[in-house]
Order: sequence, then structure tokens, then C-alpha cells
Amino acid sequence: MSTTDTRLSALEQRVQRLEDEQAIRKLHHAYGYYIDKCLYNEVVELFAEESEVRFMRGIFKGKAGARRLYIDRFQQNFTNGNNGPVFGFLLDHPQMQDIVTIDDSGTIGYGRFRCMMQAGRHISAGEKKQWWEGGQYENTYVKEDGVWKIKVLNYRPVWHATFEDGWAYTQPNYVPFFTEADLYPHSPLGPDAIDPDPVLWPDMDVVPFHYPHPVTGTPWQPA
Amino acid sequence: MSTTDTRLSALEQRVQRLEDEQAIRKLHHAYGYYIDKCLYNEVVELFAEESEVRFMRGIFKGKAGARRLYIDRFQQNFTNGNNGPVFGFLLDHPQMQDIVTIDDSGTIGYGRFRCMMQAGRHISAGEKKQWWEGGQYENTYVKEDGVWKIKVLNYRPVWHATFEDGWAYTQPNYVPFFTEADLYPHSPLGPDAIDPDPVLWPDMDVVPFHYPHPVTGTPWQPA
Amino acid sequence: MSTTDTRLSALEQRVQRLEDEQAIRKLHHAYGYYIDKCLYNEVVELFAEESEVRFMRGIFKGKAGARRLYIDRFQQNFTNGNNGPVFGFLLDHPQMQDIVTIDDSGTIGYGRFRCMMQAGRHISAGEKKQWWEGGQYENTYVKEDGVWKIKVLNYRPVWHATFEDGWAYTQPNYVPFFTEADLYPHSPLGPDAIDPDPVLWPDMDVVPFHYPHPVTGTPWQPA
Repeated sequence: MSTTDTRLSALEQRVQRLEDEQAIRKLHHAYGYYIDKCLYNEVVELFAEESEVRFMRGIFKGKAGARRLYIDRFQQNFTNGNNGPVFGFLLDHPQMQDIVTIDDSGTIGYGRFRCMMQAGRHISAGEKKQWWEGGQYENTYVKEDGVWKIKVLNYRPVWHATFEDGWAYTQPNYVPFFTEADLYPHSPLGPDAIDPDPVLWPDMDVVPFHYPHPVTGTPWQPA
Repeated sequence: MSTTDTRLSALEQRVQRLEDEQAIRKLHHAYGYYIDKCLYNEVVELFAEESEVRFMRGIFKGKAGARRLYIDRFQQNFTNGNNGPVFGFLLDHPQMQDIVTIDDSGTIGYGRFRCMMQAGRHISAGEKKQWWEGGQYENTYVKEDGVWKIKVLNYRPVWHATFEDGWAYTQPNYVPFFTEADLYPHSPLGPDAIDPDPVLWPDMDVVPFHYPHPVTGTPWQPA
Repeated sequence: MSTTDTRLSALEQRVQRLEDEQAIRKLHHAYGYYIDKCLYNEVVELFAEESEVRFMRGIFKGKAGARRLYIDRFQQNFTNGNNGPVFGFLLDHPQMQDIVTIDDSGTIGYGRFRCMMQAGRHISAGEKKQWWEGGQYENTYVKEDGVWKIKVLNYRPVWHATFEDGWAYTQPNYVPFFTEADLYPHSPLGPDAIDPDPVLWPDMDVVPFHYPHPVTGTPWQPA
């Protein structure tokens, strides 16, 4: 191959990498905008057929699992079956602090993100409720037929606080974790499996980093 | 055209696209940093001559309209005519969650962003006030002589909350919308036209997405 | 040089610029994730040997200075010497709103970022404490042997608020600034020098922008 060809090929690969990273950032940001507005149909369409959602120790498997969580569960509980926002119900998930990495195959990507939630119900819309939540994602993506999709959506809340009292007063296990007793299909809206890992504030842990240390290059190792 | 030329041209176009997206991200982030510090002169210079600001149902047209809003109105009301911050007055607008898209012409761009405001006045600086606000932008940009400028700044608050009480207690129409009675020049600092669209929390709506669904490619359609 | 070579070289330079900007964004976001989890060893490894941290009017010089601040001071005070998070102690630093610029040499970079902190101690983990803080960074980076590292980490808090009372009630000089009396080695964990610049809310100032105005191209000039 001529030098020109070599240089062109190297450039094409580098530009592809930059475009892929941008595509995954946008995919995750789009997820954030959809979930803010309870557009659960649009959320489910972001997933690959072979995928999973990890949420509150539950693992929902496949696009069917995502549908069970977002449509059968959230859309019923939060918006009375509407695909879209309802009066006085807030579930904002601003997304930030992306670190996206594409692996050598060019068809698998990883993304770490932060989210800071504002949520609740207005006094004129039912039982009043308002809370803050800080969380993080450590997700996996797959490129199929040239399109990036969510392979693993792994949401990990870090802290939770009522608007009134703050994170210093949060009850341990403030949202009940899914357990073996909640598994699908025994529980029709439950997860397919249990993820034993997550802890909740005031307990603390480190969600493993998909990337090595940016200066030393050392892969993440728990202490 | 030789294969080499074809490959070079394709790469040049792809790199241009990536650079344009970065330029628009930086333009919006720069807007955020200027507005935080009441640098209203700098904000106005971000706009194209043919442009508009949409704010609280008012449409301020042209760079002259931006000047009326930011300098004649905000600079007078917030900082006593100073171009810069003043003691005890806070108006922080952290910006995040960009989705930027360049159209096929390469001279029009679109950007969706989120913002989470902390604002108010310190007890030692006048009447005490403190509030949170979550909002979003769905903006348009234009490239003129190689420089990206704001074509449409469309800010849409999503929720508003006093620090003391939170979003569950927000009064409907917490900030009065501009109406036909406020139009310029009848009202010297008013908008040029009225945008009938926006709603305010606890009402909810979906600000149309400029981009199609990232996986299905379907353009946004309201339900 | 042939036209093809010229075009290839121009593209290589532009792609390098885009990659360098991404590398610095990721470096800063990685800093944010490490500091959230009190991974102070990992934080220190982000710094160049010739570097400094600016924090609360103290200037900590060199990687040794960073070690004194993060390990000898923070790790002792916050996590009892552990490299990692501890029960009931929160120090979240979500990062956002990057503006990264590479200079003409290609080996020096600048980054402006925002951060919005949630911090404190849970009632079951000692003395209860909870606060919000908004801040910004105006950092410098250096590329050594192909790897970007922090050259100057310049953190500037903008406002601080207890969760209970908010920013309207913040005491002036809410965190004591370092002074000449605190200098190292007289004070074993103190800074090497004093930065006279910073102010704290309710005082306000503008941290100079490393970049020119994105539309007019005018470099930042204080009023």
C-alpha cells in the first residue's frame, strides 16, 4: 500500500472513532431527553434486541425486558399509560460528564455518565413528593448495521434526598431493591435476574471504570 | 476524480462536520459563561444580525431585539447598567447534555441543551431571594463568513422552585408571560411578537426535537 | 509537496486537534469521577511533575504539592487514610460545560469547566453536614510523551450554600482562605504560595476566559 493510502486509512479510522464517540454521547443524551418527558416508547427503541437494563438490583433482559420495565411498569405507574409527560409529574434527568470509549473492534462502546435528578409531584396533582437524586451510568453500546444502540444500561444511584431534608437524613435502602421474590414471570413486571452488586447511600462503593487511568494507563483495580 | 481525491474530499467533509459541532457546543457553553456573569455585551455579540431570542413567550427579533432584552432590560434591572457581576446577585446557568446537528448545507446547525439555574439575591444585597430552575434550549445557529452565530435562542423553562419550598409548591405561571399588551414599541422593552407555544410547570409539554430518533431514524412526531 | 500531501497534512493536524480536545475533556471528567470517590492516589497521578493546584487562595506546587493537598490533607481529613469512599461521606463533583482549546504548539491546552457539588456527612456517620457548591475551573494542560496531564488545576468556587438555608444566607468567607501564616513548610500541610486573586460569594468576579469571544474574536479584557 502506498504511503498516501496508509495515511488515508489511518485518518479514516481516527475520524470514524471520533464520530462513533459523538454518536454514543448523542444516544445517551437522547435517552436523557426522552426519559425526562416519559417518552417510554422512544426509550425502548434505543435498545438492541440483545441488551439489558440494570435498575435497583434488577436485571431486565432483552428489548422485551426494557419494554416490561419502561412501558408495562413505568408508563403504567407514572403516566397512566400515556407516552408523554403528564400534569404536575416531574422526572428530570440532566446528563453530563461523558467518558466514551470505543473498543478495537469498532462495534462495542462504553460510556460513563453522571445524572442529577429532580423529581416529584406537584401539590395540585396528587400526593405531594419532591426529591433530588445523584446517579451514574456505566453503559455498554453495540453498533449493528452502522447504528449504535444500548447494549447495557447500568444506572447506579449514588445518593438520594428529599427536597425537604437532604441527603444527610436519607433512610438506608430508601428505594426497596428487587429481590429473588420479585423475579419475572412469577412477578409479572419483575426483573429476569438479580444483580447482587449495588449499594445505596449512605453506603458507598466505586462503580468500576471501563477505562484505564488516563495518564498511567493502568486498568482500574479495586483496592 | 481519482479514488484518493474522493477519499480526501469525504474526509474533509466529515472533519468539517465534527469541527462545526464542536464550534456550536463551545458557542453555547460560552453563552452560558457570559450570562452567568451578566456579561450582556458579550452575549449580544453571539447573535447574527438576523436572529431572535424566545423568552417567556416573547420573541425579540434581530440583534436589536437581543440588545433590548439583554442590555436595555436585564442589564438595567439586574446590574444597574454594569456589564459584569455585582455583589450578592447570583444567576448561574450551568449548561449540559448537548445534542448538536449540522444540516446538509453545512451552514445551519441545531442544538438541544439543558440548563439548571441557581439564582437570587444575598440577604446583605437587598431583598433576599433564591430559586432553582431547570430549563432547556432548542436553538438554531448560522455560519456566516466561517463563523457560527446564534440564529434562534429558544429557552424553555421546565420547572421552577424557590429554595425554601421546592417545585411541588410552585405557583402556576410563576413568571408572568409576555402578552400582546407588552409588545414593542408600545412597551419600550417588550418583545416584537408573541410565541403562543410555551407552557410552565406544573403544566408539561414536549419541546419538539430537531433530530430524528437515533436508532429508528424516525423524525419526531407529537402524539 | 503535492496537493494530496498538503491536504493530508492539513487533515492530520485537524484530526489531531479534535482528538486532543477530547483527551482533555476525558482527563477532566476522569478527575471528577476520581474526586467523587476520594480516589486521591488516582487524582495525584493526573498531574505533570511541573504543575500546580490552586485551591482556596493556596498554590500547591509540583506533583509533590498535589500529593500534600490530596493525600496528606484530604485523605487524612476525609477518609481516615483510605484511598476510596467511606460510609456516609459525600463529595460529589458533577462536571459540565467544557470549553477546551489547544494552543498552536499542540502541547499546551486550556479548559474551562463548571462543577456543582453535593457534599456532607450522613446523620449516622458523625456530625451531620450538607452543602451545595457551584464552582468553575480554568485549567491548563500539558502533553508530555503523547499523554495529556494537568499543568494547572485552578478551582474557583462561585457560591456555597448549606442545604438547610441556601445561598442567600451564606456567611462571607464561608471557608477560610489560606494566608501567609499557612505556608509550607512552616505549616506542614499548607500551600507553597498565596494567590491573592480569588473572591468568595456574596462577592463576585469574573475568572478570565482563556479563549477569545467566539464571534468577534476579541480576547477577554476585564472592564
